[in-house]
Amino acid sequence: MTTTDARRTIRLGLFAFGCGHHSAAWRAPDSSVERLGDIGYWTELARTAERGGLDAFFLADGQALGVGAVSRGPLWLLEPITTLAAIAAATERIGLITTVSSTFWDPFHAARQLAGLDHVSHGRAGINVVTSMTDDEARNHGMERLPPHAERYARAAEFVEVLRGLWRSWPRDAIRADRHGSYVDAHALRPIDHHGEAFDVAGPLNVPSSPQGHPVVFQAGASEQGRDLAARSAEGIYAVAWDLEQAREFRDDVRRRASAFGRDPDGIAVMPGLVTHVASTEREARERRRALDELLPVEDSLRQLAFFVGRDTSEWDLDAPVPELAPLSSFEGPKGRYATVLRIVATRNPTVRELLGVLAAGGGHATFIGTPEQVADEIERWVDAGGADGFNLMPPTLPGGIEEFVEHVVPILRRRGRRPLAEDAGATTLRERLGLPAPR
Amino acid sequence: MTTTDARRTIRLGLFAFGCGHHSAAWRAPDSSVERLGDIGYWTELARTAERGGLDAFFLADGQALGVGAVSRGPLWLLEPITTLAAIAAATERIGLITTVSSTFWDPFHAARQLAGLDHVSHGRAGINVVTSMTDDEARNHGMERLPPHAERYARAAEFVEVLRGLWRSWPRDAIRADRHGSYVDAHALRPIDHHGEAFDVAGPLNVPSSPQGHPVVFQAGASEQGRDLAARSAEGIYAVAWDLEQAREFRDDVRRRASAFGRDPDGIAVMPGLVTHVASTEREARERRRALDELLPVEDSLRQLAFFVGRDTSEWDLDAPVPELAPLSSFEGPKGRYATVLRIVATRNPTVRELLGVLAAGGGHATFIGTPEQVADEIERWVDAGGADGFNLMPPTLPGGIEEFVEHVVPILRRRGRRPLAEDAGATTLRERLGLPAPR
Repeated sequence: MTTTDARRTIRLGLFAFGCGHHSAAWRAPDSSVERLGDIGYWTELARTAERGGLDAFFLADGQALGVGAVSRGPLWLLEPITTLAAIAAATERIGLITTVSSTFWDPFHAARQLAGLDHVSHGRAGINVVTSMTDDEARNHGMERLPPHAERYARAAEFVEVLRGLWRSWPRDAIRADRHGSYVDAHALRPIDHHGEAFDVAGPLNVPSSPQGHPVVFQAGASEQGRDLAARSAEGIYAVAWDLEQAREFRDDVRRRASAFGRDPDGIAVMPGLVTHVASTEREARERRRALDELLPVEDSLRQLAFFVGRDTSEWDLDAPVPELAPLSSFEGPKGRYATVLRIVATRNPTVRELLGVLAAGGGHATFIGTPEQVADEIERWVDAGGADGFNLMPPTLPGGIEEFVEHVVPILRRRGRRPLAEDAGATTLRERLGLPAPR
Repeated sequence: MTTTDARRTIRLGLFAFGCGHHSAAWRAPDSSVERLGDIGYWTELARTAERGGLDAFFLADGQALGVGAVSRGPLWLLEPITTLAAIAAATERIGLITTVSSTFWDPFHAARQLAGLDHVSHGRAGINVVTSMTDDEARNHGMERLPPHAERYARAAEFVEVLRGLWRSWPRDAIRADRHGSYVDAHALRPIDHHGEAFDVAGPLNVPSSPQGHPVVFQAGASEQGRDLAARSAEGIYAVAWDLEQAREFRDDVRRRASAFGRDPDGIAVMPGLVTHVASTEREARERRRALDELLPVEDSLRQLAFFVGRDTSEWDLDAPVPELAPLSSFEGPKGRYATVLRIVATRNPTVRELLGVLAAGGGHATFIGTPEQVADEIERWVDAGGADGFNLMPPTLPGGIEEFVEHVVPILRRRGRRPLAEDAGATTLRERLGLPAPR
């Protein structure tokens, strides 16, 4: 990169989800809801992100349909790994990051599929390791219910260890292809012979190491164990941060933990989710947000809130203050989002209706609303204040929200030297694009 | 199809493997061995097959590197599902069939990935269910050794049942996308609530049914249990047949079993593997085959034979007759190939060296050598005599072997009305291409 240095560069990825991250996005008259099962829709989103020079295209995932949830809006439709492999063939530069549940995946299959994705994309693959959230998911994989939080995270740590071992087990330079001798130098292979609490895996992997060594490893948990796992082994973190203070607290804490594990904290890119509403005036941006909020049935919002707080909310009075919530330590669900709800309640004392409005638009992730300049300013401010190394963009509507961002916000960040000029970037792998060190 | 009727059409797929199916193909001076890790190589093979109007592109798979085997030649490199998803984006019509081991895959993941592949390919996916072969594979998936044959096949039968249930569990017409109401009609979903010997799976799948209903199901086992599984639930069979008599015995038997299970035997396409050596004269074709055989170290052939017969062959005298082999019933490895070895020995009484020559060129699959007319004649003869509904082509060299077949043999079959004219085919899904009935 000739016009920006790595420290000043703000990492940006697109988190593609349905018709957008606003719960009512699919209800808009001009939404693409009919195209969600069409790979062409997802490929176009990835190409738009690539055209804007973004670093990555990210897909979340879940292991159950969620019968109640899917009545209220589209959730999962395609399968993320096959989707990203198809997109790999239709794009050239953008990183491709999938979510994999360590609670339900066999590590040999996961290591192999991600290594395969890394090859078919010529070194652009990433994996976001999660531990899953619901008993519905467990019942699709032979369990009666989700294992307890601590057990899931212990398994996740072992899972990542096995993956890294497998990804190193067949170094690509072990391939000789000597027509008069051996195809592979068997002495250069490194079986892992892993025998742990959760997994027994011999190795080596039957996919050689890829152009970037191995896929970039992301982590998304915000609990104590999630932070430790991220600090010990993640190269990128998808954080949930409602405001800059919460973002700094999280990033500082993870960097401290990484140092304590003997790692350079700059080897971890902390990328909170970011919802942006962009328009030519702030007033118009707020108006668009309000129009989306109005599309959402209140009962749907209450059900989403019930999931976020782990309680029945159906009897809550919409115009009364939010009832008192249990402390974070006693909550067994996803911690990051719950912490955000607690923080919104503590700092703003909203009514239930006000809280629903905030959550519908991105589930409590950072939300910047305004002109392209205002949004670019806020992005810079968070990064320069140590709240983030970049953002995982969660447009409220798709494809509109990412088109606007790419056309109006990215050019400002480029002019300010905070994004590489596309023709200048020089990086070919996802790890290089994110400015992260090569795997040890 | 306007110029051919379904009964007269000969199904043809390409079984892509390394530099070709001859064990020494990679050793040829002009082989593509350096390109095996490049998705571009595999995409070009699929496009060549598509240009020739073939029905399918098929990948085998294994769950271990095979340290000894990979010294002697390339085995697996990329991962088949991600490879086929990438090829889906770069092709338009050809079917895409992957191998999945029911011994090591979780059925929810398998159902979901195959449904995903079916969507990203617009209805061109197929799955070849196998039960795996080696303890090395078991040790990569938490087992000390491969479960016994009977247990593997019982699991495979349950696996296919769960897959079919999951593929029906979210009918695509349950999607309403009613902007003022529900996204999905929850009453149209069909959870499977499967509780069996090997699996507990609730469902529904979180991928809706695909353009062809669900992926086409292939099976490849030749044992008693494999034949029953195929007869009960397969839509296509990858058979191993050394000669027409063996092919007819197998096809007749499977059709009888299918009838006994209440199925129309014409709903199953039996497609033996077929090695072809094609040249402008028969003499030249034989000469090419001999040149390939000469590239192969004898020790490598002996090791391959040891795997096929489940015995140490290192002390066998190359110029003596093959030692007496145990009967098929007592053999625990892959039955189809072993039956072929027994058959070659019984009908030809070859020396060990002669047997090695036959096996190196395609492991005992049907082998047609000659001019394009001779090869086309033999293909027609097998189909018309009831030995096959088509073939899974196993070119001894790639890409050369498939280019020759597509350029010289396919046009003859078209002229004879045995292959649809490409511009005439009219089929959009793999199931339609194969002339198979819609799923029940």
